[in-house]
Amino acid sequence: MNTIATTGEGAEKAAQLLIVPTALIQLTLEEARVVVNYMTPRFIAADTTFIREGDTGDGGFMVLVLEGEVVVESITVSRTEPLTIKVLGPGSLIGEVGLMDKEPRSASCTASTPLYCAILSRAALEKLLADNPQVGAKLLMAISTLLAQRLRDNARKLRLYANLATVMQKEIDSFTRPQ
Amino acid sequence: MNTIATTGEGAEKAAQLLIVPTALIQLTLEEARVVVNYMTPRFIAADTTFIREGDTGDGGFMVLVLEGEVVVESITVSRTEPLTIKVLGPGSLIGEVGLMDKEPRSASCTASTPLYCAILSRAALEKLLADNPQVGAKLLMAISTLLAQRLRDNARKLRLYANLATVMQKEIDSFTRPQ
Repeated sequence: MNTIATTGEGAEKAAQLLIVPTALIQLTLEEARVVVNYMTPRFIAADTTFIREGDTGDGGFMVLVLEGEVVVESITVSRTEPLTIKVLGPGSLIGEVGLMDKEPRSASCTASTPLYCAILSRAALEKLLADNPQVGAKLLMAISTLLAQRLRDNARKLRLYANLATVMQKEIDSFTRPQ
Repeated sequence: MNTIATTGEGAEKAAQLLIVPTALIQLTLEEARVVVNYMTPRFIAADTTFIREGDTGDGGFMVLVLEGEVVVESITVSRTEPLTIKVLGPGSLIGEVGLMDKEPRSASCTASTPLYCAILSRAALEKLLADNPQVGAKLLMAISTLLAQRLRDNARKLRLYANLATVMQKEIDSFTRPQ
């Protein structure tokens, strides 16, 4: 397999970006170098959609952005136009939810510039866990922490929306109550 | 340490509940038995709040419900009354977000009946990873998958709320637009 380690300069950059605050800061540089050995380098041309909302056939993988930018978009049931959720740059991890649960992708990811990235497939993660369970477990701890933090952020937003809905309902009630 | 394994009958029940669909179904019963060796049994009297929203001092732990029911509640910024989020029964895992990221607890958990449970502390998880990285990694895979699925559910709800807000804004615009 053409792993990122075989590309020389790319490997060290990938290892360094894997431990910046936007990615998996809990790994040491040494551990990140081990993980990078299981990643595959990939160049993606601008305007290419490399993860498609609803896709189930990709077997699960996550992407570490090395250079360039990615637009994350979602088309939901009641919309016909995609909604841009976020724009991600170097050091960002993409697709870690799909890597873990292998369910259909919940958003589309498109390179908005030429994109250099490193990919960790589900199969490579499983090989890392078999070859080096210590580093594999450390990577999983870091991914779990990232998922937990995102879950916490989303839960906070959901509570805000729920509060807003309650306040609005009260307001509506106060107007429509029989005089 | 008084682990759950020392309590005999509780241990096998805990192992079996750890692999039901509401908890960590990806573990084999054999792996669940190893994990249970690192858990501590605990009886909690009815009406006891054992996780408090905002708490940071507990060092991180998750709870597997063996018998009884737990009410999960949250007081948000704009509320004075707690909002019941969910009620959980046997086989439910509680607190896995705090176990992973060690941030302040995002909800309070109260035993609504006498409660028998098994606790996995952050320290015990780290010991399991050191002693038996294979099973530890498998547990982390299962917890990550659970977090990923919950993240996916929340993201779906957030998109629904965002859509609803857009639709309402359009409706409001159509009423307030100068005639």
